[in-house]
This record gives sequence, structure tokens and C-alpha cells, in this order.
Amino acid sequence: MPQDIYDKVMMLAKRRGFIYPSFEIYGGVAGFYDYGPLGSQLKNNVENLWRRFYLLKDNCIEVNTPTITIYDVLKSSGHVDEFTDLTVECKKCKRSYKVEDIIDDDISVEQAVKEDKIKCPTCGKKLSDAHQVNLMFSTTIGIGEGRKAFLRPETAQGIFTNFHLLYRYSREKLPFGVIQVGKGYRNEISPRQGTLRQREFAMAEAEIFFDPDDKTHPNFDGIKERELYLFDNEKEFKLTVQEAVDKKIINNQALAYYMYLTQDFLLSAGVDPKKFRFRKHAPDELAHYATECWDAELYSERFGWVECVGIADRSAYDLSAHIDSSGIDMHALRKFDEPKTINRRKIVLKMNVMGPLFKDKAGKIKELLEKIDIKDAKNISVTLDGKTIDVPENCYEIVETKEKVTGEKFIPHVIEPSYGIDRVVYFLLEHNYAEIKKKGEEYRILKLTPQMAPIKVGVFPLIGDKKLVDIAKDIDKNLRNAGVETYYDDGGTIGRRYARMDEIGTPFCITVDHDILKDNTVTVRDRDTTKQQRKKTEELVEFLKNKLSY
Amino acid sequence: MPQDIYDKVMMLAKRRGFIYPSFEIYGGVAGFYDYGPLGSQLKNNVENLWRRFYLLKDNCIEVNTPTITIYDVLKSSGHVDEFTDLTVECKKCKRSYKVEDIIDDDISVEQAVKEDKIKCPTCGKKLSDAHQVNLMFSTTIGIGEGRKAFLRPETAQGIFTNFHLLYRYSREKLPFGVIQVGKGYRNEISPRQGTLRQREFAMAEAEIFFDPDDKTHPNFDGIKERELYLFDNEKEFKLTVQEAVDKKIINNQALAYYMYLTQDFLLSAGVDPKKFRFRKHAPDELAHYATECWDAELYSERFGWVECVGIADRSAYDLSAHIDSSGIDMHALRKFDEPKTINRRKIVLKMNVMGPLFKDKAGKIKELLEKIDIKDAKNISVTLDGKTIDVPENCYEIVETKEKVTGEKFIPHVIEPSYGIDRVVYFLLEHNYAEIKKKGEEYRILKLTPQMAPIKVGVFPLIGDKKLVDIAKDIDKNLRNAGVETYYDDGGTIGRRYARMDEIGTPFCITVDHDILKDNTVTVRDRDTTKQQRKKTEELVEFLKNKLSY
Repeated sequence: MPQDIYDKVMMLAKRRGFIYPSFEIYGGVAGFYDYGPLGSQLKNNVENLWRRFYLLKDNCIEVNTPTITIYDVLKSSGHVDEFTDLTVECKKCKRSYKVEDIIDDDISVEQAVKEDKIKCPTCGKKLSDAHQVNLMFSTTIGIGEGRKAFLRPETAQGIFTNFHLLYRYSREKLPFGVIQVGKGYRNEISPRQGTLRQREFAMAEAEIFFDPDDKTHPNFDGIKERELYLFDNEKEFKLTVQEAVDKKIINNQALAYYMYLTQDFLLSAGVDPKKFRFRKHAPDELAHYATECWDAELYSERFGWVECVGIADRSAYDLSAHIDSSGIDMHALRKFDEPKTINRRKIVLKMNVMGPLFKDKAGKIKELLEKIDIKDAKNISVTLDGKTIDVPENCYEIVETKEKVTGEKFIPHVIEPSYGIDRVVYFLLEHNYAEIKKKGEEYRILKLTPQMAPIKVGVFPLIGDKKLVDIAKDIDKNLRNAGVETYYDDGGTIGRRYARMDEIGTPFCITVDHDILKDNTVTVRDRDTTKQQRKKTEELVEFLKNKLSY
Repeated sequence: MPQDIYDKVMMLAKRRGFIYPSFEIYGGVAGFYDYGPLGSQLKNNVENLWRRFYLLKDNCIEVNTPTITIYDVLKSSGHVDEFTDLTVECKKCKRSYKVEDIIDDDISVEQAVKEDKIKCPTCGKKLSDAHQVNLMFSTTIGIGEGRKAFLRPETAQGIFTNFHLLYRYSREKLPFGVIQVGKGYRNEISPRQGTLRQREFAMAEAEIFFDPDDKTHPNFDGIKERELYLFDNEKEFKLTVQEAVDKKIINNQALAYYMYLTQDFLLSAGVDPKKFRFRKHAPDELAHYATECWDAELYSERFGWVECVGIADRSAYDLSAHIDSSGIDMHALRKFDEPKTINRRKIVLKMNVMGPLFKDKAGKIKELLEKIDIKDAKNISVTLDGKTIDVPENCYEIVETKEKVTGEKFIPHVIEPSYGIDRVVYFLLEHNYAEIKKKGEEYRILKLTPQMAPIKVGVFPLIGDKKLVDIAKDIDKNLRNAGVETYYDDGGTIGRRYARMDEIGTPFCITVDHDILKDNTVTVRDRDTTKQQRKKTEELVEFLKNKLSY
């Protein structure tokens, strides 16, 4: 069977040190991959470029929170109940399957369950009892009974649970954005699709908080004439950002702006624009927290269109949930132009009646009553430890008061671009992989941009002459001290050394030949043109730094 | 009670957005901390400087492997059996304690156990039944019985288990070093010491593989005259790297070289040299894998001397363990100058005898026999599924053969500098925290180096005049596009704005005043001298980039 591009890319990735299957010496485990030396640098470069877009261009701030997350957070966020896959087990084969993976292409999961059309892909037995299985890895903090916790399914919750602190950091002005770059986890039932579906993965997420009444973005004007690559589940088309918003294809400026930023990032990183599009989620595809979502999809010759970034409008979902569960005030304030006087109905409690009636619960009930919004002067109740407690009318009076207020509280809405960094890394390899014939032999070039390339410069002495070797080593060291990743190589013919660098995407190669002794020059070869130019050694750092700058 | 420096640093850290306790809205959990916007950048800067030292200066390569680690790896590495703390429970208080934390200062853990001198610190009850508790967080991969796994206690195992691939990447030349930067986990019984003892922490580790017969380092000559700050558990003293090796105070060049690199890194990052030293582990302190270990200790006014980096000689411990358990060849080859002919005793098996005797196990036994080193021609046995199986003499013949070999295999030794990044971050705050009086008021300055400072430049319009504001915003944007982290601020007096920047360690502030309209200049203020100089706006990027470069 001829190899497809995935096989070719992954063979190169393993052979040259981009990606290794994890725990291979112990037989490996599906859904886990290691980055080797070149893969780690490529991943670092992707993350650094991403930070440049979000921290520097877009003025976001960054946080870094634990991967271990306590039950309370993920119960409130809905993940304990909703982060699930419909699963069946085959008792004969003793294996579990995600229903979606094993049904025929032409029916939906709902149909398959309803019409009893789920079969074991191994033994062919009919499978029933499909049930939801939670996909979070669980663990326990402390010993004994300890405290129940999970590995985070997304980095976002570490941002939401700090909202009030980050809002203060941002001097209580909206919009502001917060990013997090780090690991996410999803305990897949039986992962397929190689590096594209990992159980532990690198994410980069941004949560941008908006006033729900004002989903404009300060940088929108600068990009409104740029074109977005869109797909409406039927055809692909291009529209300017402005048009997409005007025609209500994208719901608001904020969402459209972050879609453009995502497109700009991916194309700058070296994604093939012909293999890029945004696809809108159908209502039944939306995650439990989202009101609208667009996927940035990249095309793979083996896997077809694959989601690499999801850009969702999470509305007030998460902050509301955490306010409700924790009781902490995480509202934002919309300031009035001048203070307003408003009528407020206030509850005044008669503790001499409450005390004897509610005993040791009276204090807690008082606390709760003082927080609630009094609409109906009768039928007042609170919820304590899961029970509804009615408070009789003789316990309180309702008083009308006038209060001066400087603004009104509201829960911000959130726009979230969420990136799967490992997928971006894989697609940079697939989209930039090229094969040509050279002297009848297969010749591989990885056309990574200079900014993404793991190694920036190969440094070679033309021959093993000690003079040339010493100079080449000096050049190598100078470049490294200037922050440029190099690869020093004195083995084999120059052609062979160029080939090794081309295959891993190194954009430049410096060769030190005997001319160095006459005029202090070396050749600098460009990977894509294969042209060489002579440069003075003292010009090298600046010449290369210019080529490598963003 | 007057606040000590830890309180002051942590209050500033929380108020200004360096460090927040995690999950605070749900009551918090000991041993978990979040980095806020400034803390995240400080941590990024520490890790980037660290990578510069290890990747660029020291030519290491990097890997990035999962935090979830299968049982097999950590069983082989010794962590399942040895990564433990001696623990007691108080049944009355329903709490667990690490014995070390609750005994008197003047007795050892062994003594306390032997002499029955362990008391509950809460209720005073005598506690017995001290037992070892494993400190790894455990989880399960997949559903149902799944596969037992842990969160890694160190990043190092992800390097060791890839040794054979990384050795090939390094073209089979020693020494070579491999780094990993990422999370490590330790399920502390009851963590104290705030951010210094976290259950989830940021690590940066380097594993440098050496030929055990040659623990020299190629860069040693360049640093051998530099002084190391040492402490022999009695007194502090300074010695050159060379002297420390010559006097056998440090066992070998390699270890001494990485101690110096560590010292150079920490002092470059901004650690106070007067609060820095290396302390050698006593034999009973050594981790289960180490033959020699030096801690880089930093001094805290509250906690005393605290380990921030451990530099250990792990010898062949880990690679041997993984070779033994996995059966994978992870040896290195010491090439002979010319191939040698050696006599080898080879076992030739009689499968016609083996088959009937061992039945379905015959194949496995054959495999194992072919791997073992034949020393004794009689009494040959193998271990299969935990049982020792004797192989009778009629099953085999021993044949003497001559073989040409190009080199001899050996297991490399490992020198490991292992950094606790969160501790480095904390100490940069404590060591660089300064208070002065200004107009009778407390004034705080964080004297972070320009390279470590989270914000590099404050940008201020002198007053709210639209012309000045627009120019200041333009300068801010230009600096950000050039990769410089800025903070734009137009609120309050200039003095107040300088104070805000001084408190978070921002080394420079640009103020745009009316002179900009005449001669296109702004003032640049230096945090430490508080001196201002006028600069043309077009010079700003280069001026600041020079100040900020390594």
C-alpha cells in the first residue's frame, strides 16, 4: 500500500526527532505523544508567535493556573455533568467504544441508538446500553478520603474563577482579554487519528470579557476590510469582516474580530491558505456553554477537514455559574454618566422572631435574605443546604428606600478562541511537507517559515581542515549567544548536509570555505531558492536576525 | 504582629497580580497557586532565560512529554516504591501529618519513631503507626479497569525513556544534554511554606548523559577559574571550580560545571549573591537515585535557606532500571580505535527438547535465554512471570565463537540539574523587594533585572490632552509591535504612575510631554536611578531593545 502524507510526515517526524509515540519502550499507550528536540522547538515557536498575537498585538494578559482542578469548579462549569461521550461496551471483546466512532456514516448517533443499530466493530455483536461516560481524568488531593479533583479539560476555568481579580488588574475596564497556555486533558474512550486526538494536549486559550451591550472591539476598524475564509456547511466563500457582521453571518464584531485574528495567526505560522476555512457549528454541535461557535478547520489529505481552533461565544454562562455556586461577586460595573437615585425595596428582619423560629440556622438565613432581590413582598424563601425554607411574613418588614448608585452591575460575556496547539504543529508539518526528485532520488523539504523553523541556521565547515572547523565553531557559538538556534555539522558531503537541513525545515545554511581566510566571508544558502550569497562574518548576526524577526 | 518579608511580598504579589491562591472562590486548597498577569510573565522570563542557558549556551536539546505517566515507567524508576513520606494519622482530629513536620527540632525522624515521640500538633495525643505514604497523584487511563497511571513526580523520566532515540538524534556522541520544562506533581500530606511547597509545580530539568569513564565537559576550561559559593554543612567558603574538583570537594568536572552554570543562571536572573550557596547532601539525604547531590540554596528571611535547584549525579540508575524492565537496548557505544576480535560464549538451544518440556512457554524462554550473558555453563535459569525456571543441561549447548566488535556497550551516567521554577520566581520577588520612605510614606520598589521584569516600559501622556494621548498610544503600539511588553497608563499624577511601575519592577517609563510637539522627544526614566533622559521617539525601540537584550 502506498504511504499517504500522514504516514510520510509521521515517519519523518519520528526519524528526525519531531514526534515520538509516548512510553514506547513499555509498549505505548494510545493518545499520548512526546515532542522530540525539533518538535519541542516547533511547539515553542508556535506558542511564542501565539503570545505575540494575543499578548502584544491584542493587549491580553496571561495567567497560569494548576492542571489539577477541584470538583467544585468543574461541577459549576458543567463539565462533571456534560463533558461526556456516549459509550457502549462489548462484553465479549471486553472493549469500550465511543458510539460516534463505530456507527455507519449515514446515520446519526440518535438514530443509531433509537433504531438499535450499534454493532461491535470487532465481533459484529449488537450492542445496547449506550450510556454517557465522563471524559475527565480524576484524581484525589491529599491522602485517605482526600479531596476529589480532575485534570482540567480546558484552561479556561482557571481564568473564570479569577475573574474578579483580573477585572481589578484591568482597572475595571471592558473589554479585556486573558490568555492561558498549557496542558488540557480528555480521557478518550479509544483514541484514533494519531496525534490529532490526544488524551493530554497542549492548548492556548483566550477569554475576552465584553459588556453584553457592547460587543465591539477597539481594533475592529483596522481589519474590517480584510477577507475571512468561510464555509456555511454547503459552500466556501470569502467575505470581508465587516460584511460578515453586517449580513449577520457572524453575530457580532467581537466574534468576527477574533476570527480574523485567528486566521491571521494561522496563515502567519505557515498554514496553507488553500487548506483553511471557518465553519459554523450547527445548533446541535454546540458545546454546553456556547451560544455560537466557529471552527477554524485545516485540511488534511488523510483526515479531511479537522478543527484546530474553536471560537465560541460563551455568553455569561461560566461567570454566572461560578457566581451562583460560590456566592462571590464577580460582576462588572457599567458606570452611569452621573449617579442615579433609585428606589430599592429593602428587607428588615425581626431577629426576635427569626431566632426562636429557625434556631441555629437563623444567622445563615439572615445572610441569604439580605442578598436576595425583593420582588414579591410575600412568599419569601431561601435555599439552604439544598432545602427551600419559607420565611413567614411576621419575620420581616419591607421598607422602600432611596439609594444613590453610580452604575449597574452585570455579568460580562465571553468570546473564546481556543487553540489545539498539537494540531497546529501537526498541520504545519503536513502543509509544509514537500517532495521533489533530485538525481532520481526522493528529496524532502519542510517549507516552514523562518520564524517557525526549529533550527534557524546550519553551520558547516566545507572540509575537516582545522582552520575552517575552528572558524565554523566560532560562528556557531556567536549565533547561539545572539539567541539564534543553530546546528553545527561537519559530517558527510555538503550536499548531504544541506539535505539534512532541508528535511527539517532549516531556512539557512552557512558554509565556511577557504575564502574565509582571504576576505572573511562565508556563503549563506537559502533553503527555498537554494541560492547562495557571500556575507562577511561580522554581518551574519544582523543579517539573520532580520530574516528571523517577526 | 509586624509583617515579615514573606507577608509583604505575598501581599504585593496578590494585590498587583503576581500570585493568587488557587480556587479561592471555593475556599482554596493548600499547595496550589495561580500566577496572575505579572507572575505569568515573570515565570515566562525565568524559563526563557533558563532555555538560553541550557539550549543555546550549553547546546542541550529539549523534549516535551506527557505529565500523565504509566505505572510501568514509575515502577521501574523506583518512584512507586520510594517516592514516599513517613506519615501518621490522628484518629481523633481526623488529620494526617508528615512525621518530619511535627516532631521536635532536636531529634531525627528515626529517633522519634523509635522512642515513640510523635504527638498530634492539634490535640497533643501520642501518635503511632507511622507508615510510608506514596506522594504521587494517581489516575486511570481509559474507562473501566483502564490503565493505572500517575502524574509525574519529575520531568526526567520522559527523557530517560526516550534515551535511545535522543542518543541517535545526537549522532551517538557523548556528552549530550536533554532538557524538559513543565509541570511536576507531589501530593504533599499537608503542605506548609506557602508557594515554596506546592502540590503542582513548574520544573526545569536537564539530564546530561556522560561516558562514566569521562566526566569532563567541553566548556569546562572557559569557567574553571570562576568561583563557586559553597557550604560544607559547617561553614561557607569560596573556591574556584577547578580547585573544588582538584580537592575532590566536588566529585567530577561535569558536576562542577553544571553547578557553575546554575550559579551563573541564578545570579543573572537577579538572585542576591549574598543569599546564595551550594550545600552538599549528606549520604542519608540523598534521593533513591542519586550518588552525589548539591543543592543551590537561597536565603529567605522567613524560611531560612531553601533548596531551589538540586544538582545530582544519578549515575546509571535510571537507564539501567529501564533497560532491565523494558528489555530495550538503551546502551551507548564506546567505539574502539579499530575493531577487536573477542571470544564469546554462545548458547545454542535444542528446541526439540525445549518444546515438549516447556510447551507454550518454550518460545518465551528461548527469547530470554538468547539475551542473557552466559558466565556459568551449568545452572542456567530464567525468570518468567516472576518465577525462576531452571533450564536442564540437555536443552542446550555452549559454543565458543569469535566475533568482530567495533566498540563496547555501556550505560551512560547522568548529571541532573533540577530547578524548582516557582521557588526561583518567589526568591526573585523576595530578594528584589525594597522599601524606602518617600515623603514620609512607605514606597516599594521591585528591583528586578530588565530581562526578568514582566513589564518593560510604562508609557504615559503627561496630561490628558488628546494630542499627547494619541502620540503616547502610538509609541505604546510601536513598542508592542517590536516585542516589548508595555503598560499604558493615563490615570493619576505622574508620580503615582511611576510609583505603580516601581512597585512591579518596571525598569523604564516613557512620559510624553508637550516638548514632543517641538522636537519629537520624550523622557525615559530609569527605575533605579530615577534619572530621566530625553530621547527622540524614533530611537526608542533600539534604545530599549539594547537595554533589554541578554
